[in-house]
Amino acid sequence: MRLLWVYAHPEQRSLNGSLRDEGLRALREHGHEYQESDLYGMAWNPVVTGDDFCHDPRTRLSILDESERAYRAGRLSDDIRVEQRKIEWADTLVFQFPLWWFGPPAILKGWFDRIFVQGFAQGVTDPDTGRTLRYGNGGLAGKRAMVIVTVGANSATTGPRGIHGDVDEILFPLQHGTLWYSGMEVLDPFVVTGVNRLCSAGFPALAQELRRRVLSLPTSTPIPFRAQDSGDYDEHLVLREEHAPGQTGLKVHKRI
Amino acid sequence: MRLLWVYAHPEQRSLNGSLRDEGLRALREHGHEYQESDLYGMAWNPVVTGDDFCHDPRTRLSILDESERAYRAGRLSDDIRVEQRKIEWADTLVFQFPLWWFGPPAILKGWFDRIFVQGFAQGVTDPDTGRTLRYGNGGLAGKRAMVIVTVGANSATTGPRGIHGDVDEILFPLQHGTLWYSGMEVLDPFVVTGVNRLCSAGFPALAQELRRRVLSLPTSTPIPFRAQDSGDYDEHLVLREEHAPGQTGLKVHKRI
Repeated sequence: MRLLWVYAHPEQRSLNGSLRDEGLRALREHGHEYQESDLYGMAWNPVVTGDDFCHDPRTRLSILDESERAYRAGRLSDDIRVEQRKIEWADTLVFQFPLWWFGPPAILKGWFDRIFVQGFAQGVTDPDTGRTLRYGNGGLAGKRAMVIVTVGANSATTGPRGIHGDVDEILFPLQHGTLWYSGMEVLDPFVVTGVNRLCSAGFPALAQELRRRVLSLPTSTPIPFRAQDSGDYDEHLVLREEHAPGQTGLKVHKRI
Repeated sequence: MRLLWVYAHPEQRSLNGSLRDEGLRALREHGHEYQESDLYGMAWNPVVTGDDFCHDPRTRLSILDESERAYRAGRLSDDIRVEQRKIEWADTLVFQFPLWWFGPPAILKGWFDRIFVQGFAQGVTDPDTGRTLRYGNGGLAGKRAMVIVTVGANSATTGPRGIHGDVDEILFPLQHGTLWYSGMEVLDPFVVTGVNRLCSAGFPALAQELRRRVLSLPTSTPIPFRAQDSGDYDEHLVLREEHAPGQTGLKVHKRI
């Protein structure tokens, strides 16, 4: 593998830091190449502004158009281009973060906001049909991604009928709406629940399971999200009646 | 009303800017008080660091504990305390943003990450029972909140079986996991879809509808999310079998 590990935790001396170290050690031991984007360590700026693409502040900012023009002209700001090159280099991406308010920390959310611009990870079109490629195809097609997330709440409360909502569906905006959208295959997330009550005796088993998951990234079966071009959606991109008939909710976008 | 309008868009000369202006004008015309947090205008820093709570960098950072201690001692950083005072002042909150990668822009995500600390918006306990108050009760109980969001995709693709996922469920981490979690009643969101294809002729009707929604904030019926203390959940905070029997997915956390 050529793996990019994106790490979004403010403390290295944390459960997250230890798990990241373990994952990278496993990669080294098995001869895989990797790069790391330690977002706190890099002091990553997560806020999209016109400065990302040399916007003239006297004119109205149009993010989609201007970011695409700047991307194509190689004029995106340097920090964005460095990250895009890492993504292009990688065949596999890992995103590791603590779940804060049921989403990624701002520093990671803004990594996507700034880097996944039109022309790179979205708005990529089929040269023959002109159709926009997404959900299983697109700018990042051919790559694989996995989310590693630590959650304070326990597994019951983040389960299918737990009060916080099923963590798989909580991760839908990231796993489906961002990673799968841009063409990547998404592996089952590595979710560690109850971290506020985890004691150090539990770490070795967790580390072992993480190593197993990281090393099996090339061969694991991805989440069976439906592809835009699978035929499952009609011409308005609404799921056809014969699939998950009578059902609604985020889970209809997975083939069972 | 005493309303706090949190605005998270990088361009004032935008559909979002015009809608915000219209909403604030309606409030003025009807004698309501308001404050605005224009996050881009304020150059809001969305990244949680130990500096938020005078963390000693030689020791391991424990965000929950340290932020709670700093909150109780009045030692959170000034920018956080200013925002907390605005929230305390307000009886109604509006959060306005463009949907980026199926979530709020990083600058808004980090507003919650930094401000909604333990003791203020989470981890507030009942003084009699010691039980943690959340979902319909808690630090921000008694306030009302509404999300205003603009979406590039159209209403079909963000509908109940649309390819992007039902926008109501896409907003679950914010509306349920953040606003309702901290005790606020959440009104139906004001969702503007298809904004990339909206022409200016459509604006007056949109503005009129926004005015109506803003002025009816005190009297509208909130989203019927289930309260933690409703009895709908068992002692493990899992939804009891008699409610939404046999169903899973985020929608089970609403009473129909």
